[in-house]
Amino acid sequence: MSAIKKVVLAYSGGLDTSVILKWLQETYGCEVVTFTADIGQGEEVAPARAKAEALGVKEIYIEDLREEFCRDYVFPMFRANTLYEGEYLLGTSIARPLIAKRLAEIASVTGADAVAHGATGKGNDQVRFELGVYALQPDIQVIAPWREWDLTSREKLLAYAETHGIPVEGKRGTRSPYSMDANLLHISYEGGPLEDPWFEPEESMWRWTASPEASADQATYLELDYRCGDIVAINGEVLSPAKVLESLNQLGSKHGIGRLDLVENRYVGMKSRGCYETPAGTIMLKAHRALESLTLDREVTHLKDELMPRYANLIYNGYWWSPERFLLQQLIDGSQVTVNGTVRLKLYKGNVVVVGRRSETDSLFAPEIATFEDDAGAYNQQDAEGFIKLNALRLRIEALKKQTH
Amino acid sequence: MSAIKKVVLAYSGGLDTSVILKWLQETYGCEVVTFTADIGQGEEVAPARAKAEALGVKEIYIEDLREEFCRDYVFPMFRANTLYEGEYLLGTSIARPLIAKRLAEIASVTGADAVAHGATGKGNDQVRFELGVYALQPDIQVIAPWREWDLTSREKLLAYAETHGIPVEGKRGTRSPYSMDANLLHISYEGGPLEDPWFEPEESMWRWTASPEASADQATYLELDYRCGDIVAINGEVLSPAKVLESLNQLGSKHGIGRLDLVENRYVGMKSRGCYETPAGTIMLKAHRALESLTLDREVTHLKDELMPRYANLIYNGYWWSPERFLLQQLIDGSQVTVNGTVRLKLYKGNVVVVGRRSETDSLFAPEIATFEDDAGAYNQQDAEGFIKLNALRLRIEALKKQTH
Amino acid sequence: MSAIKKVVLAYSGGLDTSVILKWLQETYGCEVVTFTADIGQGEEVAPARAKAEALGVKEIYIEDLREEFCRDYVFPMFRANTLYEGEYLLGTSIARPLIAKRLAEIASVTGADAVAHGATGKGNDQVRFELGVYALQPDIQVIAPWREWDLTSREKLLAYAETHGIPVEGKRGTRSPYSMDANLLHISYEGGPLEDPWFEPEESMWRWTASPEASADQATYLELDYRCGDIVAINGEVLSPAKVLESLNQLGSKHGIGRLDLVENRYVGMKSRGCYETPAGTIMLKAHRALESLTLDREVTHLKDELMPRYANLIYNGYWWSPERFLLQQLIDGSQVTVNGTVRLKLYKGNVVVVGRRSETDSLFAPEIATFEDDAGAYNQQDAEGFIKLNALRLRIEALKKQTH
Amino acid sequence: MSAIKKVVLAYSGGLDTSVILKWLQETYGCEVVTFTADIGQGEEVAPARAKAEALGVKEIYIEDLREEFCRDYVFPMFRANTLYEGEYLLGTSIARPLIAKRLAEIASVTGADAVAHGATGKGNDQVRFELGVYALQPDIQVIAPWREWDLTSREKLLAYAETHGIPVEGKRGTRSPYSMDANLLHISYEGGPLEDPWFEPEESMWRWTASPEASADQATYLELDYRCGDIVAINGEVLSPAKVLESLNQLGSKHGIGRLDLVENRYVGMKSRGCYETPAGTIMLKAHRALESLTLDREVTHLKDELMPRYANLIYNGYWWSPERFLLQQLIDGSQVTVNGTVRLKLYKGNVVVVGRRSETDSLFAPEIATFEDDAGAYNQQDAEGFIKLNALRLRIEALKKQTH
Repeated sequence: MSAIKKVVLAYSGGLDTSVILKWLQETYGCEVVTFTADIGQGEEVAPARAKAEALGVKEIYIEDLREEFCRDYVFPMFRANTLYEGEYLLGTSIARPLIAKRLAEIASVTGADAVAHGATGKGNDQVRFELGVYALQPDIQVIAPWREWDLTSREKLLAYAETHGIPVEGKRGTRSPYSMDANLLHISYEGGPLEDPWFEPEESMWRWTASPEASADQATYLELDYRCGDIVAINGEVLSPAKVLESLNQLGSKHGIGRLDLVENRYVGMKSRGCYETPAGTIMLKAHRALESLTLDREVTHLKDELMPRYANLIYNGYWWSPERFLLQQLIDGSQVTVNGTVRLKLYKGNVVVVGRRSETDSLFAPEIATFEDDAGAYNQQDAEGFIKLNALRLRIEALKKQTH
Repeated sequence: MSAIKKVVLAYSGGLDTSVILKWLQETYGCEVVTFTADIGQGEEVAPARAKAEALGVKEIYIEDLREEFCRDYVFPMFRANTLYEGEYLLGTSIARPLIAKRLAEIASVTGADAVAHGATGKGNDQVRFELGVYALQPDIQVIAPWREWDLTSREKLLAYAETHGIPVEGKRGTRSPYSMDANLLHISYEGGPLEDPWFEPEESMWRWTASPEASADQATYLELDYRCGDIVAINGEVLSPAKVLESLNQLGSKHGIGRLDLVENRYVGMKSRGCYETPAGTIMLKAHRALESLTLDREVTHLKDELMPRYANLIYNGYWWSPERFLLQQLIDGSQVTVNGTVRLKLYKGNVVVVGRRSETDSLFAPEIATFEDDAGAYNQQDAEGFIKLNALRLRIEALKKQTH
Repeated sequence: MSAIKKVVLAYSGGLDTSVILKWLQETYGCEVVTFTADIGQGEEVAPARAKAEALGVKEIYIEDLREEFCRDYVFPMFRANTLYEGEYLLGTSIARPLIAKRLAEIASVTGADAVAHGATGKGNDQVRFELGVYALQPDIQVIAPWREWDLTSREKLLAYAETHGIPVEGKRGTRSPYSMDANLLHISYEGGPLEDPWFEPEESMWRWTASPEASADQATYLELDYRCGDIVAINGEVLSPAKVLESLNQLGSKHGIGRLDLVENRYVGMKSRGCYETPAGTIMLKAHRALESLTLDREVTHLKDELMPRYANLIYNGYWWSPERFLLQQLIDGSQVTVNGTVRLKLYKGNVVVVGRRSETDSLFAPEIATFEDDAGAYNQQDAEGFIKLNALRLRIEALKKQTH
Repeated sequence: MSAIKKVVLAYSGGLDTSVILKWLQETYGCEVVTFTADIGQGEEVAPARAKAEALGVKEIYIEDLREEFCRDYVFPMFRANTLYEGEYLLGTSIARPLIAKRLAEIASVTGADAVAHGATGKGNDQVRFELGVYALQPDIQVIAPWREWDLTSREKLLAYAETHGIPVEGKRGTRSPYSMDANLLHISYEGGPLEDPWFEPEESMWRWTASPEASADQATYLELDYRCGDIVAINGEVLSPAKVLESLNQLGSKHGIGRLDLVENRYVGMKSRGCYETPAGTIMLKAHRALESLTLDREVTHLKDELMPRYANLIYNGYWWSPERFLLQQLIDGSQVTVNGTVRLKLYKGNVVVVGRRSETDSLFAPEIATFEDDAGAYNQQDAEGFIKLNALRLRIEALKKQTH
């Protein structure tokens, strides 16, 4: 590994990445470029500028990526009804490829020869950042301080901050025992008492949603309009992707929707407990499936269902920028051209209930054929006999052969 | 098709199958054997005896198959976390193979050369019955009166009943507009106003569960003990499979759990709207996944997830008695030997919340490795660098080649 | 089924379809439009005109579809390295969708309300024709005389021909005991002595290829140039798709390449013995894989390999014109943008040997990394340790837990 | 990593592993146990004893594992018709799990705390050895000298040998430019001029098989008897698994069968050129498929075909000892209970031709149904209409909706 001259750091402005910033300068004697993005984490990004400046940074990138995040990452993923291990809506995973892309691009623009991030050596995020960066900027070097340094405890980190004059906010307040991550799609909780999978998190852990118990007593009905598999309007009001998520997060939170408590399998090899709040995502998954049920061909639906776990793995494991993800996305996107129409939902105390779905242009529902009533010959029941007979033929031959052999 | 001498009829004792019974006698001039099974549909099966006798039937089979149904069909299916098209718990589909098996067996015992059922020519059930019967008794003939006769409307059916002295109960009462089917796993509703997928069913349609609104205000916590992927005890009380379902149905119904409203793709080629109540099943799916998350290997989990849609299709389409279903079941069952332990759940107003999972014998959760705290060297963070580097290698080579070509 | 006024018949000009032509006129009292296509079956299509005219046909379509067949059907299929049941190159299957398409189009142009074909009720071809036609012209009616009429033996057919003045060529000559089908991709043999799967076909059955024994004693070397997964030139000479197949058929036949003798599973439920000669196809499969091995990403290769059997089933079963085939094709075609380069082959006595592959623009082969010699640091062998350690982690945890539980 | 006291070395007796032996003693100051296995590589294993003794080794394991290798590894793999990337018969990959197992077991028996092997840091074999060892002995340490030491060129290795008195045989002879590996299933060639994928290997590289040109001029016919998917007899003579491979290797080599020249994708991320000779394996694959074509259900065949690439990946990547491989093996083995019967083959100049297959007990071939002749009503051609109509229904609905929307 050659000497590093300039490194682009994914910088939140918080204590950890501020320490990293300083540590990079000290350890590598290199220039640091900071990159801070608003992806809806709910914290101001503007203060990152002053902090970076105070640490001597000259090239400071602060960007509002909320629309891009929702439009180019969250929405495509929801077209596949993506769930990791049957449950997880991939709220953290899907934010990483965008950060990786911008790190790679800023490195290119600023002539940096390395990027750095604040993810630990135990988690999936390091993999997601680095696979993305390597795929987009193959010659780059990656610095992952948590895998390198000796600041292996919170105490040492605080000591380093103190020594180097890095301000430690809220030092004296009570610190959450949980490691959290948030963006427009979700907020996650890991660590601390959650490391016991038998432990039920206390109500105060959850930051976004009302508990079902405390949620609104009146149900909300709403209609979502879809175009090519993406939500384009809520109750008739056209909204941008980020506005869709904001809106549904608000509604979902009010109705206690989107909490999840699970044990998942990390790519690096161990099981890990996580709790998630994904109000908008929970609503979107349910609604999208409902519209697909009306507008997608059966075999296309089944093909998507069979490919989905693999697609989810790719995103979870950090392969967004891989050629196999692109190809699967092409197939998924191709399937969505008919996913146009409206879904009507009822939200109530943690429940997302589909109460109606329609499509003026693409419904494949043929009541004249499906009806229990007289269908005027639209469907010939005699056909079923031949259908069954030929589908049964191999089974019958096998049973007959078994009898005679 | 040769002349039929004796036919085994899947007989509910209701109007439709009573008419079929008579019609078979008249049309085929054959002897009819009736078979009536209690699979938890919630109606008395005993009265079927007197009705069959009144119609001159001499061989009458009335059986309580509830335990067999739950043990040999429902439980194996839940080991796979089976969902058809992402939503449907296959409550109707899974009951058919057992009926088919008994029809075939009774035909063999009674020397019948045919079986008959009351499923229409438009639905999946005819396929499920007949594929099963053909696979188990390949020489048998199948009579599906709904595909043959001219009693194509309710009026004609009633007229036929009247003419032939078949008592029509509740003739004058208000008849449900829905076609219903029930067993220990679920109750389903189809037809009538549901044929409009934009129509929201009125509250009175739902027969089993309280609505979330009307459900209990106090949450219930419960613990489910698993052995090899099957529930063996609730709150420490050892229960048979059927008792597990009864118990969870009761609890679920009280808490508004298990309603589903969807459009599904039938095997015979059209889309169809169905509403389902599956209280126990909804709880079981959630709980089983939770215990697997603790006790199953990651790649086994993913393998099961990828195979599940195919397995669900097999059951939905009626291929329970096929060799490919047997092989998949073998793989699924093989995966469950470690799925032992306990899941703790909270039921509240439609929500099934996993609040804890543990396994004394088979947990693969290694907090000493996963911990955010000091792990005393259990995991070497340096390893992640090589892991990422080699996983990235192909992506880097491809990007480099693209730059240079 | 309403009365038929005009029907488009897939007409070969041979005895069978001439009888069908007459039978349609007689049975349905309808006008018949004939459609005869040259897809490289090796028989003149021109004579079909006179024959049709002699039978009173007014609208006669005779078309040379060889280029369209190779370009839009054969080539796309080979992009997927398609094999049905591990062996069969789908030579018959891939020709049907094109015929179906033209039948549907000609029906539309001529205002016909039905189409008819000469495939039997036992085979796959009826399914392929009809699924295609229904998908493209959903209101059309299909007449399959072999499933309807009583001309159930060759004798009855000949008698019918005699009675109706249909000339029977070669009546007195020795007729092949085999049912054959040919197009630019292959010739197939079924029936007769092949119905015993232990029977070895006599040498004289094979019509296209020299036997390996009788084939050329001198090997031929050749180079195939690919563009986006399709062969565009042989030994540097740019050729159209049909010319590519003709050329490779000639070369392959000379070198005894492409014979296949197998038992396959028909979609209609029984097993069937078939013998095939596919000289060009055998060469193309081998060469295409070789170029992909150089230019395709690993995971893309594996994704294609896993999807291939499903794609092959779709073609074999007649679902070319289904939305799921379109989507898979999109994915497959998307993967081929980098499949550019040249493959060098040696043909000798039944063997197709890849002896070289190169791509100026898209090779992903990185000898500087793969080399056994000094790689000047291009690959860090230390990385392998972390790679293995983390991939092993779940296996180690499981083994440790097993020891301690 | 704690100090190593005793290490079990996979020892061939050759120069490389002799240097490793010495280097381990020097570098780790530990005791070395040697393990040398005969898996049919064609070199004497007995001399390894004297060599190890000369280097001061006290615990020496020399074992004939040929039968175990063929019975428990090769045969199970062939039940799946396993091919990696459509071509490679996994001859190297399948030998590693057995070596890993014995390393782990000998470590346990001898109280060793580590194992060592002579695979480089660039290849797949290190992964296969180490994943196996970790899965079976999770606490063990692994030493991979090629990833650690500075003997990075042949010159340095020879110098080390000279310095430490390790005899270097054939030092003066001409050394093959290829890296080779052999066992009863195959011999492989890598490196040297093969690193250019356009290079055609000279005839002298191939060590086992005659070239098709030089192979026997008379074809050989042979019959293979199968039981549960495994070959149990050749031409009626009952043979052990290893004898089956020896026999078929001899026959295949004589007839120029089993050469392969390909570019493959390594698990560690790069493409690599390899040439292989697998005479017996090539025959076995072809014959096994042929018997399956007669005795396996269609959907089981297709299920196996779809799972095969994944199963191949597991073996190629070193996951033989993983739970997912066990489960897939269970499914595969379960499918083989009916794969009983005989396949007749013709071997000639590189060609393996199936000329007959039969099964007294398990044939599913029903000529009475498949026949082109009169089938006496065994198959009702009318059934095909309903079969096609219902399979077409979704396609027709979609086309109709498209017309009307």
